[in-house]
This record gives sequence, C-alpha cells and structure tokens, in this order.
Amino acid sequence: MSEVRIRPRQVLILIIVFIIVLMMVHRNGKRTCQGPEYLQAMYAQDQINTLPKIYAITPTYARPAQKAELTRLSHLFMLVPNLHWIIVEDANTTSSLVRSLLDRSGLVDRSTQLNIKTPPEFKLQGKDPNWIKPRGVEQRNLALSWLRAHVDVERHAIVFFMDDDNSYAVELFAEMSKIKPGRVGIWPVGLVGGLMVERPLLNADNTQVVGFNAAWRPERPFPIDMAAFAISMDLFISFPQAIFSYEVQRGYQESEILRHLTTRDKLQPLANNCRDVLVWHTRTEKTKLNAEEALQRKGQRSDDGIEV
Amino acid sequence: MSEVRIRPRQVLILIIVFIIVLMMVHRNGKRTCQGPEYLQAMYAQDQINTLPKIYAITPTYARPAQKAELTRLSHLFMLVPNLHWIIVEDANTTSSLVRSLLDRSGLVDRSTQLNIKTPPEFKLQGKDPNWIKPRGVEQRNLALSWLRAHVDVERHAIVFFMDDDNSYAVELFAEMSKIKPGRVGIWPVGLVGGLMVERPLLNADNTQVVGFNAAWRPERPFPIDMAAFAISMDLFISFPQAIFSYEVQRGYQESEILRHLTTRDKLQPLANNCRDVLVWHTRTEKTKLNAEEALQRKGQRSDDGIEV
Repeated sequence: MSEVRIRPRQVLILIIVFIIVLMMVHRNGKRTCQGPEYLQAMYAQDQINTLPKIYAITPTYARPAQKAELTRLSHLFMLVPNLHWIIVEDANTTSSLVRSLLDRSGLVDRSTQLNIKTPPEFKLQGKDPNWIKPRGVEQRNLALSWLRAHVDVERHAIVFFMDDDNSYAVELFAEMSKIKPGRVGIWPVGLVGGLMVERPLLNADNTQVVGFNAAWRPERPFPIDMAAFAISMDLFISFPQAIFSYEVQRGYQESEILRHLTTRDKLQPLANNCRDVLVWHTRTEKTKLNAEEALQRKGQRSDDGIEV
Repeated sequence: MSEVRIRPRQVLILIIVFIIVLMMVHRNGKRTCQGPEYLQAMYAQDQINTLPKIYAITPTYARPAQKAELTRLSHLFMLVPNLHWIIVEDANTTSSLVRSLLDRSGLVDRSTQLNIKTPPEFKLQGKDPNWIKPRGVEQRNLALSWLRAHVDVERHAIVFFMDDDNSYAVELFAEMSKIKPGRVGIWPVGLVGGLMVERPLLNADNTQVVGFNAAWRPERPFPIDMAAFAISMDLFISFPQAIFSYEVQRGYQESEILRHLTTRDKLQPLANNCRDVLVWHTRTEKTKLNAEEALQRKGQRSDDGIEV
C-alpha cells in the first residue's frame, strides 16, 4: 500500500491550522447571540444542562392590548434559555392569537398553551373595580395541576407567576435560577403598593428575611406582590394542597399560596441581598377606541382581516 | 530530518474526524441563541455584514416607570443584531440610570447616550394635556445632528424613531432592514388614533401607498404615527433641512419630517403588504405613589439607596 511521508514540522503546522480553524468557527458561532456576561453564563450552563427549568405561569385574557403585551413578554423567553412559558387563557378555547404568537417567536417547543374560563360568578361585572374579585385564580390553578401531572419530579425546577403586563429584567431569571430545592426565592418589586419599591428586610448577615417594608396591609403573613417570589417545584409536589382560592380577602392570594409552602425565615433572599430591582409592577393604560366604536356603528372596522 | 509515514486511509480518517469536530463546535456555538427563522436569518446576514445598521432614536425623561420601560426596550436590542440605540435624555446631563442599564444589558458598544433639556417655554406645565406642546423635538433633532456628523455616509443605514413606551415585535426590525436606499419604509401601527389599527392603503398590486385609514385628522399629508415608518439614512444626508419643529400643529410632526424626505407614492410598503401589525402604540399608566408620598412627608423613602 502506498504511503505519504510527512515531516514533524508539517504535522505541527497542520495541528496549528486545525486549532485556528476550530477557534474561528467557535467564535463565529458564539457571535450569533450577543449579550451581557450573566446571560452568556446562562447559555453555557444551559448547554451542559445544569440550569433548572423555570416554568412561568401567565394568565391572560382577550383585550385590545393583549398581543402587544404578550409580544413584549415573548422577548424574555427568546433571550432566557431555561424559561418555559405556560400561558393560560381565560376562555373556552385556546386562541389562534396566542398560538401564532408562540409560533412566530420560535417558542412552540418551550411553551404550553392552556385555557379555562373563570366561572361567571367570579368574573368582574361592569363597574367593579378590578380588585374586588380575585383574578387569575382558575388559570393559575390549572397551570399548577398541569405541572404536578407533567413535570419530571426528579429534576430541580422553578415555578414563577408572571403577569402579562408587568416589566421584567432578564437578570431576574438568572437570579431565579439560583433558588435551591425546597426553597422560595424572594426579591424586591418596583412601583407597587403605592411605593417606589416593596422589598423584604433582611437580618444583619443578609441570610434571612426578618420583615417587609409594605405600606399596604403590612399585617398580611406575606405582604408582597405575586412578582416578588418564585418557588422550587418540589414544594408543589410535597404540598399538593397548595392552590389559589376565591375565598381569600383582597391582597391575600400571595399569602394563601405561600402559607402552604414556606415560612418567612425559610425564604431565600436574591437579587443582590434584595437591593436590586429587577421587576416592576407596571400597568398598561386601557386603549381608547372612540374612532373604532364610531366605525363599528357604521358596520365597519379598522382591523378587518388583520390581527392586532 | 526524520519523517512520519502515514497511509492514505489514515489521512481520510483524519479529515473525517476534523470535519466532525468542526461541525460539533459550530453547532454548539449556534445553539447559544435560540430564535425563530427570521431572526436566525438576521444573525447569518449580520455575520457576513449585509444587514444595514438600524439607528433607533429614543427620547426619554426621568419618571418612576422610566427604568421599567427602558428595560423592556433593551430586550429588543439584545435580540436584534443590527440595532444601534441612540437614547436622548431630556436633562442637563446624562444619567447613571441609563448608563448602568446599557452596561448591564451588554449594549454599551451598540448605543449612544446623549442629553438635551427641552427649553422651559416648551415644557409641559402642571395641567397641560400632554399633546399641547410637542414632545421629544429637541431630543430627536440632537440625535439627527449626531447621526449626520458621525455616520459613515457610504454605508446603507436606517433611522427609526422609537418611543420608550410603545411595544415592538422583533419582526418589525427584520422588515425595517428591507428598506432600500433613498426610501421611507411604512407599515401599520396598532392601538393608535382611536382605532385598533392605523394603516396605509395600497394599490392593487401592493406596490404603492394610495391612502391611509386614519380617522383622526385624515387631512394631514402623512396621517400616521411616529412608529409607522423608518427612513433610509442617506435621505437625511441629502436633505439637511429635515428636522423636527416646535412650530407645527398637534399631530403634524410626522408630516413635518416626512415632507422634506419623500412623497406618498415613494413610500415603501412593508410588513406583509401592510397587513401585519408589528408595533403597538401602548401607553403605561402613571404610577400611583400615595404611600411613597406619605413616607416622604415623614422624611423617609422606600427606595433609599436603591435604583428603581
């Protein structure tokens, strides 16, 4: 059989060329996604499968700004590799609006689309202020049942209740990924409860929550917003009775779910010892549609055949 | 000099191993960024440098929800590779809030932080409704001067006026990247002017804008919102007189800038022949801070030492 003769120096040159090409290809690949260090670290961890999956539960309902709001949220899911989106529509069927939004964001494989209609006796009536009856109870509970039935209980995962109109920083999800099994992570929330920031107060060595700065109903067991915490999935398996309820006073939903799962002293403080604000309780203005209503009186509409 | 003898079959095996390692490294790199097809296509184009840079000009001002709003916007910049953010603060100096936000989003190299204070005679007074005096005029004009002075006129680029509280889909920027030199791209905007959607009306073969469906002041030369269009940068170089003005009626800023640059028949329809809604004119509710005000009367604050 014929042979090729090569010199050691040629072998060395070949190896060097090989390594250079490898590095170029690697760098090129990496460059497809820009982002700050904490995000690059998440991508690296995601590749070696050491990030816990975060299940974000978002109750939603049809209204003019629904698609705009969900579109803004979808960017977080596109950026954060370990986020799985459970969208629960307050409706008798899932909608094509949500389905196509997930599809066009490339999130079909990382999402679950559910639906359940709030019973009419609990629906807001015409002039009820929107806090009289609890919102999202039915939808969050359906998502919890789905999780309890479908999640691999052996794998560490996190559950987060994510409203469709709040504002979230990508860093919040890096923080949330640090929640330990059996724990509930906690952090500050901006623009809520009449304050610039509602936040947990920590002990001297920043290891335990010793109180809260809430101004509104500070006597609640957990005087915090739904956006202030996320929960290790194993707690929902250990405590199957943990669900949301219609039978609680205004502002007590957070305390209702948490009382089953944890105590104040076991909360895990995150976000730079609860000093970084990474989520804001923003509210979107109700859309003014006076011209649209005038059109409709003439049997017309601006969005004929167009999904807004 | 000593030599190594290898057989052709060994050479073949070496080459195969080399290619396999290359493909693995390449694939691994790619996997760091998930996303739908149109976004992957943008990343590929960005690598070979065929995407025009999009300069997004965002006037902003200090208020409780400022950081929340800018954080939401920053996700678009993190996702879209060819976006460059020009943030212009209505203030006498640039702020550390904006600087640290850009830093923590990994956007320092893809952004420009400017500031200019709106002259007091044009500032909104206590009870003025916010449409009486034009907003963002000074800030947008400063950004245009900066662009005219700093941009490489030989390279195709796009200019987009991006408010800090609207909602934008990632796909809008893929569409915007299709704007040709010398043209102004146009598309529908959701939830604006009292309608579900304001949109251009096209001729039979969808190549030209022949009208608009606006209900509010349809007699304007361009009865559209600031979010409805983006402009090829070369037009700003060819027409140095194109700037915003305080001297125009309410709702005429868009017409004022566009009248220098284009005519209706030269507009380039985008977004699936102006049938896809990829931007929404959402508005965020003013934050209620009653408890914060009560604290301040006692000389305290909830955000002492904390940036919200």
